[in-house]
Amino acid sequence: MTILTPGPTEMNPDVLREMLRSVNPDLDKGFFRVYNETVEMIKKLIKWNGDIYIMSGEGMLGLEVSIANTIREGDRVLSLSNGVFGELFADLAMRYGAKVDTVNSPYDEPFDAQLIKNVENYKAVTFVYVETPSGLINNIESVSERIKGKGSLFIVDAISAVGGLPIDCEALGIDICLMASQKAFSSPPGLAIIAVSKKAKEVIEKNNYKGYYMGIKVWDEYLKQEMFPYTPAANDILALHRSLKEIFREGPESVYRRHLASKEATIEGVKAMGLKLFVKDQAFSAPTVTAVYSPISPEKIINFAWEKLGVMLAGSWGPLKDKVIRIGHMGYTAQKRFVAEGIAALGAALNYNGIPANTVNALKKVNEVFDSYNL
Amino acid sequence: MTILTPGPTEMNPDVLREMLRSVNPDLDKGFFRVYNETVEMIKKLIKWNGDIYIMSGEGMLGLEVSIANTIREGDRVLSLSNGVFGELFADLAMRYGAKVDTVNSPYDEPFDAQLIKNVENYKAVTFVYVETPSGLINNIESVSERIKGKGSLFIVDAISAVGGLPIDCEALGIDICLMASQKAFSSPPGLAIIAVSKKAKEVIEKNNYKGYYMGIKVWDEYLKQEMFPYTPAANDILALHRSLKEIFREGPESVYRRHLASKEATIEGVKAMGLKLFVKDQAFSAPTVTAVYSPISPEKIINFAWEKLGVMLAGSWGPLKDKVIRIGHMGYTAQKRFVAEGIAALGAALNYNGIPANTVNALKKVNEVFDSYNL
Repeated sequence: MTILTPGPTEMNPDVLREMLRSVNPDLDKGFFRVYNETVEMIKKLIKWNGDIYIMSGEGMLGLEVSIANTIREGDRVLSLSNGVFGELFADLAMRYGAKVDTVNSPYDEPFDAQLIKNVENYKAVTFVYVETPSGLINNIESVSERIKGKGSLFIVDAISAVGGLPIDCEALGIDICLMASQKAFSSPPGLAIIAVSKKAKEVIEKNNYKGYYMGIKVWDEYLKQEMFPYTPAANDILALHRSLKEIFREGPESVYRRHLASKEATIEGVKAMGLKLFVKDQAFSAPTVTAVYSPISPEKIINFAWEKLGVMLAGSWGPLKDKVIRIGHMGYTAQKRFVAEGIAALGAALNYNGIPANTVNALKKVNEVFDSYNL
Repeated sequence: MTILTPGPTEMNPDVLREMLRSVNPDLDKGFFRVYNETVEMIKKLIKWNGDIYIMSGEGMLGLEVSIANTIREGDRVLSLSNGVFGELFADLAMRYGAKVDTVNSPYDEPFDAQLIKNVENYKAVTFVYVETPSGLINNIESVSERIKGKGSLFIVDAISAVGGLPIDCEALGIDICLMASQKAFSSPPGLAIIAVSKKAKEVIEKNNYKGYYMGIKVWDEYLKQEMFPYTPAANDILALHRSLKEIFREGPESVYRRHLASKEATIEGVKAMGLKLFVKDQAFSAPTVTAVYSPISPEKIINFAWEKLGVMLAGSWGPLKDKVIRIGHMGYTAQKRFVAEGIAALGAALNYNGIPANTVNALKKVNEVFDSYNL
């Protein structure tokens, strides 16, 4: 079995093995060091001077933490959206009583920064860097130029980005950067990673969020005593720690290059089989996940690949449900052998369903791309 | 290294090994079955006809879920408290705007049900079955008699109970029963398990909780489509599933008997070393954790045991900080070899710190108890 979905994805066996021990994270000072080392490695990876919290819960918890801690009933929020998660961010802000203005841009091209006006009137602007369901990477620099330094908090979902491509959070003026363990970190799902800037901390300080589990202020009170507000998901953190060590052992630049090669190889492979990318301009197809239009019901492809070949590909949801097939190439799976396995499975599934697709030629293209990267 | 703290605790290697695979819990229908099987096993264990949710997050998340979903600003809540978690429940209810009346009873004896009056006036009553920080098991039957059938929701933190002792949630009239993976299930920390009765569901339906991650209504919407509202912590659930299978393979009655033997052996062992139980009446010392007064700073004992012997014992917190030492005998560690290891480590740590303690005699007692149980 091989999991080639855009998170959770196939994991490095060394990362999995890291979980093979019992630990009491509340009492073992050694674990507190592991937690802190994990935080420090993430800071280095995303170029961050602020604080980072690793909460026990899925990435979605982080999105809600970012809203719950900063937004009060009646606050104005600007939601920039060109995908499923962009819309979900607006929904979350409304749940917390925000007056949300939404600027929408098409799903299949990068968010059009020209559409952003009057940023000054908002307490926070929400934005998604990589839209996993559509395999799209937004042009965050152009958006950042319109947001940063204008007073509102710039909250960015970078869940399917970090670990797979370079990000300079400080340069981009991000105030809250959201990550999750199961994407390009290739760790088990279960950890929401929340980077909070000094400016965001000031807003949080004044805000009146009363919850405990998601409370940044609660975390701060405990962390300063070298304690956690609840028992952390220790085994998941041990795995994430190892994943990050692997990233720095290889070197982030090499990791990012491997992702670019995997993206390009996946794209060339699917093109050679006559498929069309969902994202119009290949430059904005994400380095971590590729979405292609499916010539037949994606379910047929996915079921064949999983049941007959043990290779898990993904469909999508929202408006993309029944339209696209997605192949993840994140973290550990951003390698020739996984890309080739995904392309071979896709080709076989197409053929089985009566669709002509030249898999041999597609795999040749995959190899050519990796060869051109010397990978 | 051996973790003998009252959760997280040393785990069964078979449970740990269960985590050694990559899985996409959103797309793999096989995983949805694992989730459902896990839910069904928990239902059977706690005798439950209602719903069960396994959320990704620590046990504390479950406590907050129980309050957030049922309590509106201005609702009246009765907090029954004789320990650190009892007080925390009151704090959580206040965070969600409840008017909280608290009935306190001493930490070292079971909650005095005679103190409970006028239950009818409350939307919910919060109660802790086993107070982990003090190693106390409350007489839940006597409390239940005063609560059930009176209209208010009976919300019970059974986190350090379930898996270690029998509980009949239906007979006790519990409306929300809270559990966590890392206690007597001996699974990794990271899962909050929330059992919700039909009556509680009706209250939740009417209540206006707006959050997403902790929203029971959000979960219901997704579960009925055989989906999750966010990617579950798959590896942790695989481990929990295996833990439950182990409990049913052995048989719950045998598991509970093993806990009683471990409790009795621990108590006889510490008594033989001249230590005094924190809980006044041995009958109310929990089958999952024993707290004893420490003749010197608990830190000295704990540090020696951990640093020199690799055995992790626990101190406590709140008013019990610097007073007691705790030994967990939960799930996998409710066995002679772990109890003996804990007693031996405690004896050695006492001796090293100049306190006379007859470890040989204590271990003899431990063996006698397990012999009397034929274990």
